Amino acid sequence: MSAPYSRHRPCRLSQVPRWDLETEVLIVGFGAAGASAAIEAAGAGAQVCLLEAASGHGGTSALSGGEIYLGGNGGTPIQREAGFSDDTEDLYQYLLLAGGSDADAAKCRLYADNSLKHFEWLQAQGVVYKNSFIATRIIEPFTDDCLIWSGSEEAWPFIDKARPCPRGHTPQWMGLGGGKYLMDRLAERVQASGVDVQYDCRVQALIADDDNRVLGVVARRNNEDRFIRARKGVVLCAGGFIMNKAMLQQHAPKLLRANTPIGTVDDGSGIQLGQSVGGNAIHMNEGFVTIPWYPPQDLIKGIIINERGQRLINEDCYHGRVSQAILQDEGTRFFLLADSSFFAEPEWGPFAKIGIAAAGESWEEVERELELPQGALQTTVQVYNQHAARGEDPLFHKQARWLTPLVKPPFVALDLRIDHCIYSSFTLGGLHTRPTGEVLDAAGEAIPGLYAAGRTTSGLPRVGAGYSSGLSLADATFFGRQAGLRVAKA
Amino acid sequence: MSAPYSRHRPCRLSQVPRWDLETEVLIVGFGAAGASAAIEAAGAGAQVCLLEAASGHGGTSALSGGEIYLGGNGGTPIQREAGFSDDTEDLYQYLLLAGGSDADAAKCRLYADNSLKHFEWLQAQGVVYKNSFIATRIIEPFTDDCLIWSGSEEAWPFIDKARPCPRGHTPQWMGLGGGKYLMDRLAERVQASGVDVQYDCRVQALIADDDNRVLGVVARRNNEDRFIRARKGVVLCAGGFIMNKAMLQQHAPKLLRANTPIGTVDDGSGIQLGQSVGGNAIHMNEGFVTIPWYPPQDLIKGIIINERGQRLINEDCYHGRVSQAILQDEGTRFFLLADSSFFAEPEWGPFAKIGIAAAGESWEEVERELELPQGALQTTVQVYNQHAARGEDPLFHKQARWLTPLVKPPFVALDLRIDHCIYSSFTLGGLHTRPTGEVLDAAGEAIPGLYAAGRTTSGLPRVGAGYSSGLSLADATFFGRQAGLRVAKA
Repeated sequence: MSAPYSRHRPCRLSQVPRWDLETEVLIVGFGAAGASAAIEAAGAGAQVCLLEAASGHGGTSALSGGEIYLGGNGGTPIQREAGFSDDTEDLYQYLLLAGGSDADAAKCRLYADNSLKHFEWLQAQGVVYKNSFIATRIIEPFTDDCLIWSGSEEAWPFIDKARPCPRGHTPQWMGLGGGKYLMDRLAERVQASGVDVQYDCRVQALIADDDNRVLGVVARRNNEDRFIRARKGVVLCAGGFIMNKAMLQQHAPKLLRANTPIGTVDDGSGIQLGQSVGGNAIHMNEGFVTIPWYPPQDLIKGIIINERGQRLINEDCYHGRVSQAILQDEGTRFFLLADSSFFAEPEWGPFAKIGIAAAGESWEEVERELELPQGALQTTVQVYNQHAARGEDPLFHKQARWLTPLVKPPFVALDLRIDHCIYSSFTLGGLHTRPTGEVLDAAGEAIPGLYAAGRTTSGLPRVGAGYSSGLSLADATFFGRQAGLRVAKA
Repeated sequence: MSAPYSRHRPCRLSQVPRWDLETEVLIVGFGAAGASAAIEAAGAGAQVCLLEAASGHGGTSALSGGEIYLGGNGGTPIQREAGFSDDTEDLYQYLLLAGGSDADAAKCRLYADNSLKHFEWLQAQGVVYKNSFIATRIIEPFTDDCLIWSGSEEAWPFIDKARPCPRGHTPQWMGLGGGKYLMDRLAERVQASGVDVQYDCRVQALIADDDNRVLGVVARRNNEDRFIRARKGVVLCAGGFIMNKAMLQQHAPKLLRANTPIGTVDDGSGIQLGQSVGGNAIHMNEGFVTIPWYPPQDLIKGIIINERGQRLINEDCYHGRVSQAILQDEGTRFFLLADSSFFAEPEWGPFAKIGIAAAGESWEEVERELELPQGALQTTVQVYNQHAARGEDPLFHKQARWLTPLVKPPFVALDLRIDHCIYSSFTLGGLHTRPTGEVLDAAGEAIPGLYAAGRTTSGLPRVGAGYSSGLSLADATFFGRQAGLRVAKA
């Protein structure tokens, strides 16, 4: 007989047949959020048990580049060495704008004020950062270098609100895959902290009393249901829902246009467990999406058009912001137009399936080859060139350094079709939480005994259009820590 | 002491001190959905109690034009008299496309198959329809006429998927306000059916057992909590959440750009009551928005541009679909460009605050007056004109009858600013239900004892871009009926 427990309905206290295990703090999920929560809760003296559905640590965080968005307080040593004195207010304003019209001001404030200390904490966990800065615009380092421009800091409208500063900090790890390195370090600390880690252990349901006070979980391991009591609280750090097609269909159908989900488990179970006791899931339609259409950064001098020949956005903003504009557009065909003064093959082209869609001696020829409506591409280029020649982009406010008239043949159109190229995505909607990690119901009241962090929540990265590399890991590690500290004190 | 009951947390059976009232079917909300559910449940022999928070019947349905989207099965008598033999499959395909990528195929199917019978049912309730058709494109009749084009049937992409047919049926009522007439007729039938109607009675919480089986409600009336038992079930017909700014902020922040919510109570309580027992709220970011920029229909020959001078959509689709494109655009300034061959003041202009933003002898002059980027408006008009002269619109597929080059001066730009003009809106996200009205949890399982209809649910009108006038009342009345029939049989 299969277990009757459901992530959609809490197991009531009266239905618990026995307690197989008792702990003070129970953490669900061993990604960056869960690891950070565990380290802090254990460090504060609490007895901690961490359950992970997979057979090892890492979660989706280990799939990432390991980059964390850090700064403020005059800058990290690496920012300062690179010549940037990052002001806390600039970081705060940037985070606020990146969070969209419902940005969580309290989280932005707390993070901006404590981001430098958070960098030191990461180092204290054994995460090593090389004192180096890559000034050109890239996706993530292929080297072991650290600091990069990882957002839209230098692009409109961000540049008008906050002094720009590079804030993407990647651990010292040669090549891609810094996320695995980061998670290995955090996992070592979790183990060293005496946390009871149980792998291959999937949470089936929360255990709650009639008032939805959370008291533990029902977890399945070795084909057996285990009833685990958490005297201080449960912390949900189980990722987002990018691997759950039914949830995407119901809440974020546009994300289904992106063909490459970034996820491990990410089946929405963390969010749904929270909802089962009244947790409020917000901004469920939001997600990150990207195609790595630059580097080389000179491609930013090109313009991106849709199948109507129209530009979409200032191309000098973060690749994920550009890609979000593509995701929201109704069409499927998108092109990057470049001229011979700067064109080069995109570095991630083979990975992302970005090929050349057309080339020609005139834009008229390119337009015809792409079978775009006559005049549509040509007039878009014409208007762009006319203003670019004066160093202006009155339509989308691309900054002057990237503005050059597209006049040197041959001309090239790169293929960015959303139904063909690699568009990666993950979800940003999730449980509404306080900066302390307390999960809130729709009335804005905390659900006793329940905490969450990372992509199970709607956090610092709240809307796709504002995403910047490193924001999700910043949110997961920092607010995972806050949740761990808070639950330990419960 | 204020009542401790919350729409966010069910009152447990063990907490019920007494039953003040017992009934078989309890309906929450006396708009079109609640009235239709009550009539059918009572007609099926059930004992019905209907609770309404306001002091009279009608809800937001009574604020509407009373139009209902009807057809199929060869057409209603009014469609047939007007020369349209509406095919069920065409209605089905239209509804499917209008529902977006997660359209509820089962609801579309049931409605298409039974829409003609539903028309007869409405007539049987005393709703009178005049046998008349207004062929020109309007918002709703100022007269007592019936049939109008109320959607995007004749526009791309709908016209490619379903043979177009006018389907908006407005009751015989002189002037605007047919919704009040409709609700008065339905209310008469509710009263005649022996339904126990209680006004000024607001539901505070659902009453449920530990497994979230819904057994009744806690309602507040005369400053007293009343515990009402519903032996067969509770039907939530309490409208959407357009009047709840906090919910809009968390789920549908873009709708806050529209300045004129269409709502009475619509505080999201129906949806939140459903969520309190595990109901799955889906597509919560979706909403209807519109500015009545036509009639006269000749204005459809104009083109609508954003502040970058770009067109957004084929202007011959339904005004709400055009307005949705405006809502989704990043900017705030939008203009309708017309030439003197067809320009006339918009009929709803004074109501909607649509004024003339600029006029000139050349498009260059209009562009300058609007302070748009040089060349942006001009080239858009140039490309449009070039294709329109051939009866084509390869960018957005506006149909040939509306295509005329904009070449006769003087030229006019009407002001459609979203932060100035009247943009009306209501929400479309809500509880996930079966066609029977059964409320589903996130696992797709029905919650025993709980039903819902109307804007408390995500129904036939599911995405703003697919909305057509009459779809919300069609959904509310038809699926309100289904819920009433189903709960009566429980």
